Amino acid sequence: MAEKKNLISMTTDFGEADYYVPAMKGAIYTINPAVEIVDLTHAIPPHDIYAAAFMLLCCYRDFPKDTLHLAVVDPGVGSARRPIMVMTDDYKFIGPDNGLFSYIYQRERVNRIVHFTAEHYFRQPVSNTFHGRDVFGPCAAYVSKLVDWRMMGEEISDPVRFNTPTPVAVSDKEIRGAVIHVDRYGNIITNITAAELSEDRARAGIRVKVGKHEATRFLTHFAEASQNELFAYFGSAGFLELAMSRQSAARVVEARRGLEVEVFTS
Amino acid sequence: MAEKKNLISMTTDFGEADYYVPAMKGAIYTINPAVEIVDLTHAIPPHDIYAAAFMLLCCYRDFPKDTLHLAVVDPGVGSARRPIMVMTDDYKFIGPDNGLFSYIYQRERVNRIVHFTAEHYFRQPVSNTFHGRDVFGPCAAYVSKLVDWRMMGEEISDPVRFNTPTPVAVSDKEIRGAVIHVDRYGNIITNITAAELSEDRARAGIRVKVGKHEATRFLTHFAEASQNELFAYFGSAGFLELAMSRQSAARVVEARRGLEVEVFTS
Amino acid sequence: MAEKKNLISMTTDFGEADYYVPAMKGAIYTINPAVEIVDLTHAIPPHDIYAAAFMLLCCYRDFPKDTLHLAVVDPGVGSARRPIMVMTDDYKFIGPDNGLFSYIYQRERVNRIVHFTAEHYFRQPVSNTFHGRDVFGPCAAYVSKLVDWRMMGEEISDPVRFNTPTPVAVSDKEIRGAVIHVDRYGNIITNITAAELSEDRARAGIRVKVGKHEATRFLTHFAEASQNELFAYFGSAGFLELAMSRQSAARVVEARRGLEVEVFTS
Repeated sequence: MAEKKNLISMTTDFGEADYYVPAMKGAIYTINPAVEIVDLTHAIPPHDIYAAAFMLLCCYRDFPKDTLHLAVVDPGVGSARRPIMVMTDDYKFIGPDNGLFSYIYQRERVNRIVHFTAEHYFRQPVSNTFHGRDVFGPCAAYVSKLVDWRMMGEEISDPVRFNTPTPVAVSDKEIRGAVIHVDRYGNIITNITAAELSEDRARAGIRVKVGKHEATRFLTHFAEASQNELFAYFGSAGFLELAMSRQSAARVVEARRGLEVEVFTS
Repeated sequence: MAEKKNLISMTTDFGEADYYVPAMKGAIYTINPAVEIVDLTHAIPPHDIYAAAFMLLCCYRDFPKDTLHLAVVDPGVGSARRPIMVMTDDYKFIGPDNGLFSYIYQRERVNRIVHFTAEHYFRQPVSNTFHGRDVFGPCAAYVSKLVDWRMMGEEISDPVRFNTPTPVAVSDKEIRGAVIHVDRYGNIITNITAAELSEDRARAGIRVKVGKHEATRFLTHFAEASQNELFAYFGSAGFLELAMSRQSAARVVEARRGLEVEVFTS
Repeated sequence: MAEKKNLISMTTDFGEADYYVPAMKGAIYTINPAVEIVDLTHAIPPHDIYAAAFMLLCCYRDFPKDTLHLAVVDPGVGSARRPIMVMTDDYKFIGPDNGLFSYIYQRERVNRIVHFTAEHYFRQPVSNTFHGRDVFGPCAAYVSKLVDWRMMGEEISDPVRFNTPTPVAVSDKEIRGAVIHVDRYGNIITNITAAELSEDRARAGIRVKVGKHEATRFLTHFAEASQNELFAYFGSAGFLELAMSRQSAARVVEARRGLEVEVFTS
């Protein structure tokens, strides 16, 4: 009953209306029928590697040890960007070398990064436009079958990483950050974590300015909020968030990724 | 080949673009890798417990005996609302005690309702905003591993239930009901069932008024309908529905949940 | 580890917000718990059998041998249209006999087409409106349990097929085709394949007119494209496509299915 799953998670910007997701799954199952695929999401906005990196960041650790996280947001398909695998103690990450794994490099001790070069592990012929089906999916399937990475490519040490947006302490009493995500409920997720703002300090009293609006309370339970009140709290992925009770704060505030957020403490 | 599945169905208002669904699945698989998760839907409108209750109602019985139905539409997360499990002979239902299972209480003989109180079965630390990942998912996973409910909480007898909308017989020849759902095709599902309107009586001749429109025929096959005709029939979940052939009746009628429906019989 | 999956792929126009997909999956698992279901897509536009046929065409071959492809886009539900199974050496296809499998008849050697008539393999009572749950799902489940087709129905030889849109060679130097799909990225997929236009001939120089726009280059890599350039290439499903780098060509060109495409070679 407690047997282990051979799990691959899948993050793409393919949407669910085209043949890209099932073609990629079919290619994986053809190589390794014993694997199980879990969708992380396929709703990443087209080509948005930042959104995909953030999505992975928020939940990769919730998966069982040894899950293989496969992510294909690949605006550079057909160029020279490398197909890679990032190996940590608990997880493997497979995708294009375009910065998708920037947060992973920041948060995990990386044991090895492999550049897949052995083309006989690719689906032949390799198309110019769909490496999810032809390169990343097949490589993930072979890795899940425990093919040794030494057979599949070579180690590299210079992966592409983007600068993950970092909050700045402007003064003792002010932190400047930014919106990194707006969720389905209209909750506004910022890039500020407990590293910049301890929960104790937040509880002692903060004001958070975002656009023309301001949150003046830090709450621990949504139920304490007044109607139409914009309030701050630490969300379930560890980031400072802004919300309103049973309505979309993002709509009221007109929040979008990149919008500046200023936190004033007392 | 005919071995039994250990099945968890999942109904949420999380959408598919955020990390909530995969984080919850990851949390479940981490505790019980032997379970299989089937999405019921994640497209429940945010906080709409009525829509979620209706969705469950329409298909919970189609799942194999012993399926665990996990539903998280949880506007009161972080308040005192209880995490519960409803046990019937054939199914278990896990979710917040906010009325989500109102139809189940109505239609099934409930053997027991358990309030989960044993916090060592929760993911620690429990966040204030995401009990799907931290409470409901883990509890469902432990239940699927056959942990005894007595270890996990205590029996209660006062679950929250909302009044499920009930049709009224205004006279011998008139039933007044309401729209409870509009589906993807624009078919209009009412709350009127064979309990209020037998198929024989419907066949004998009915008029159905909805908004400014009227259906004057009860059909058993869509193919009998004339072009642009609004007609009535019993749908696949047992409710009286209104539709038009190959076009959206809901758009023509401007139907929304809650709109009154009047049935006149001869 | 390399044990075979008993795989059913599922293509519908049900969307993911109604009870239709989970009810159908539940019905299948109830009959055969050992099967695994993979979503192809549920986002086919309502009643659009052409879109469903195209979707299947683009990826059915990527699935492992012996996958059962179940497709339910069924505008004629409740009429006399037949529930059928198309059997080839590698795959089985189950769905309504309304042309859904037209491309399969064209591309595969079909060994047998079975009309399911044995009603004791259907879910009883069979509704008038939801044969996915009541007929197609159950029949697929029994087939996946290796019930002999002779028990389930009878062979037919006159399946419904629509005319798959075919490009025309207007002259030695001109091919006239049409748009058959627009994908999530705004890439424009035409019905022209290597059968009408060899890669060598395309490389030698082509112009492709679509609407008021023209592509003047055939590229093998997206990365070679200039900004705002509309270019042509062979896509991953084998069709001539038109795209623009990192923007939606379909939006610029106002492309929709059916729009004429003219290819001029040198």
